[in-house]
Amino acid sequence: MSWDQVWIDVNLATMSPQVSAPYGAISDAAIAVRDGKIAWLGPRSELPEFDVLATPVYRGKGGWITPGLIDAHTHLVFAGNRANEFELRLQGASYEDIARAGGGIISTVKACREADEAELFELGRQRLNALAREGVTTVEIKSGYGLNTETELKLLRVARELGTHHHVEVVTTFLGAHAIPPEFKHDSDAYVDLVVNEMLPAVLEENLADAVDVFCEGIAFNLEQTERVLCAARAAGLEIKLHAEQLSNLGGSELAARLGAKSVDHIEFLDEAGVKALAKSGTCAVLLPGAFYFLRETQKPPIDLLRQHGVPMVLASDFNPGSSPICSTLLMLNLGCTLFRLTPEEALAGVTRNAAKALGIDGRVGQLAVGMQADFCLWNISTPAQLAYSYGVNPLMDVVKAGKLIHQ
Amino acid sequence: MSWDQVWIDVNLATMSPQVSAPYGAISDAAIAVRDGKIAWLGPRSELPEFDVLATPVYRGKGGWITPGLIDAHTHLVFAGNRANEFELRLQGASYEDIARAGGGIISTVKACREADEAELFELGRQRLNALAREGVTTVEIKSGYGLNTETELKLLRVARELGTHHHVEVVTTFLGAHAIPPEFKHDSDAYVDLVVNEMLPAVLEENLADAVDVFCEGIAFNLEQTERVLCAARAAGLEIKLHAEQLSNLGGSELAARLGAKSVDHIEFLDEAGVKALAKSGTCAVLLPGAFYFLRETQKPPIDLLRQHGVPMVLASDFNPGSSPICSTLLMLNLGCTLFRLTPEEALAGVTRNAAKALGIDGRVGQLAVGMQADFCLWNISTPAQLAYSYGVNPLMDVVKAGKLIHQ
Ligand SMILES: [Zn+2]
Ligand SMILES: [Zn+2]
Repeated sequence: MSWDQVWIDVNLATMSPQVSAPYGAISDAAIAVRDGKIAWLGPRSELPEFDVLATPVYRGKGGWITPGLIDAHTHLVFAGNRANEFELRLQGASYEDIARAGGGIISTVKACREADEAELFELGRQRLNALAREGVTTVEIKSGYGLNTETELKLLRVARELGTHHHVEVVTTFLGAHAIPPEFKHDSDAYVDLVVNEMLPAVLEENLADAVDVFCEGIAFNLEQTERVLCAARAAGLEIKLHAEQLSNLGGSELAARLGAKSVDHIEFLDEAGVKALAKSGTCAVLLPGAFYFLRETQKPPIDLLRQHGVPMVLASDFNPGSSPICSTLLMLNLGCTLFRLTPEEALAGVTRNAAKALGIDGRVGQLAVGMQADFCLWNISTPAQLAYSYGVNPLMDVVKAGKLIHQ
Repeated sequence: MSWDQVWIDVNLATMSPQVSAPYGAISDAAIAVRDGKIAWLGPRSELPEFDVLATPVYRGKGGWITPGLIDAHTHLVFAGNRANEFELRLQGASYEDIARAGGGIISTVKACREADEAELFELGRQRLNALAREGVTTVEIKSGYGLNTETELKLLRVARELGTHHHVEVVTTFLGAHAIPPEFKHDSDAYVDLVVNEMLPAVLEENLADAVDVFCEGIAFNLEQTERVLCAARAAGLEIKLHAEQLSNLGGSELAARLGAKSVDHIEFLDEAGVKALAKSGTCAVLLPGAFYFLRETQKPPIDLLRQHGVPMVLASDFNPGSSPICSTLLMLNLGCTLFRLTPEEALAGVTRNAAKALGIDGRVGQLAVGMQADFCLWNISTPAQLAYSYGVNPLMDVVKAGKLIHQ
């Protein structure tokens, strides 16, 4: 066989349903790469002969290889920070006090409108580096802190630029319908008009988004407005997804499922009818324990129902300055297990196989299997559960992205 | 003036009560070091003249300098991990199932008894590196996973060795009375005899500990046993502290206060009488939000009472394989604010000034003030509250330990 690289002295957590062991595990394995793809994998004892003089052979010291991690829900391109607001609240200030002091999402919107692309790119790069250091090889980035055409486009352009220049692959989502901007406080329908009639066409024109998202909630957009935006996105051939059922049950998930959404995200208040709708449409449930933790929510997403009905569960950081200022995908594994009682295997599937499905790229990444893109991480761990169990001592040893070794 | 180094273009969070602003802050400041100590600090405009050709001048790019962080409660020298137990529990196994599968503290004790010093040193070094990367310059390490004389001494020797070879300073605590080992299951008093009559003298003989700790709890040692150990430590001239009131209120904190303990740790179930006793004796309250989070506790420590009675509050990681497998001091700031509602300033005091007090080294470290050891961190942040507000993108730029620049 002629390969570009071979890894031996490793165990594989393939996360592939075709391998029946937990984690799709193959112990004492080998994996071979050619042309950026996985060309062979299996037990080391079955490794075919290859030209050992012409092929680099990497030794994994008995560690575990997993698919490269995928963070399927972030808002990581933004300017400013909300540390002052965080501090004011802990000093006892009311939400009104904070709003008067210029806090809340509007402070981030203001900072994003004022920032130039170079500044946003540099901030995004630092955050992408932090995720990359934890083994993330693909990340979704949403707009939604512009709330006007110019700034929404700017945020998406920066996200696309990051994907061009960084080894971490970026999938972008247009979230113009994230909040009602102050200019449209008394006429949210007019803002939805702007999103549908001006922003979305401009986003399409520059090919800036892979998907469209809406925040469907009492404090944001209602069902009818949500449907308008998602239908326009669908008609334009973009994937759709939804921030839904975070603070109440408006039925956004059922709507999204009916329209063929890739995922619904948050879903703390989702009921069984909603879960069944997701199962029927093959829509993923994206769980965001960072926001649940940071907002001190008490209503947990319906994990047992999701399990029972076979809805693919995804774990993501939701990294953003307001409700989840924790820029760590790996920490979400521990939060997901501790707070939502996921098993470590479910948690790992949530940042690999199922995360790829939520982004519509599961034909290419998210599992270790022959023909898939060679995106994988080597970890200094004795069992895959260790990735969810502990945090702080970074066990990442090596990263391969599309067949390229990434310097750690 | 003749100095070894000067830092300019910085803001200082001195954490000194002598500076009246929040965080003891001095903006647009300078700080000078000589012979490993802080020789001058103040507003840049008041910086005395010095030989600019002979003195290295470091520019802080407008960041903030804080005291080096101090983690006053860890168990970071241990072998093995409990990922399997974590996974079993999330798969629905009962505590009995897990005990039968060899889980619980005894699995760590077994791994520590079997490990040699070199292995424990290497594991400890990796963990110390992780803390150092977050700006920790001093750490407390407890024994307590040996539960026999040989292994307790081994763990303490490794902790001492780490302090000798690593730039992070190590303060050691003998915690032989951490749990009742299986060999003494039916005679805990006989184990306390061993701790007092054999282990403690051996620890003293080799000068392996700066303090002595006991786990005072229904599942561990009762008040009388606790008092025996602490009095023996006192008589030997060691500092004392206590794991107390974590799962119930046994009155351990009042006992510890009466005996002049430096700190009581956990204290979720502490009542007002206990808080008053701490205030009277000047004993610190060490809050451990990592364990609170990981064990999904619901009873919070009495923060309002501690505040009201002026008890110094400390935040620490409690890093250990059973109840707090999160090796991060910085994350404790966010956990302390989010879960316990500390203010960011209280959180930062908890890993600087008050942490030093809990370890009895507050005359030397924990604040920025003339004459104190030059232990400090430069952070790329716009306000000190940012250290508690966000996590993941490491804002640490530089570390100075006892006047030495530490490579980042
Ligand atoms: Zn979100
Ligand atoms: Zn402890």
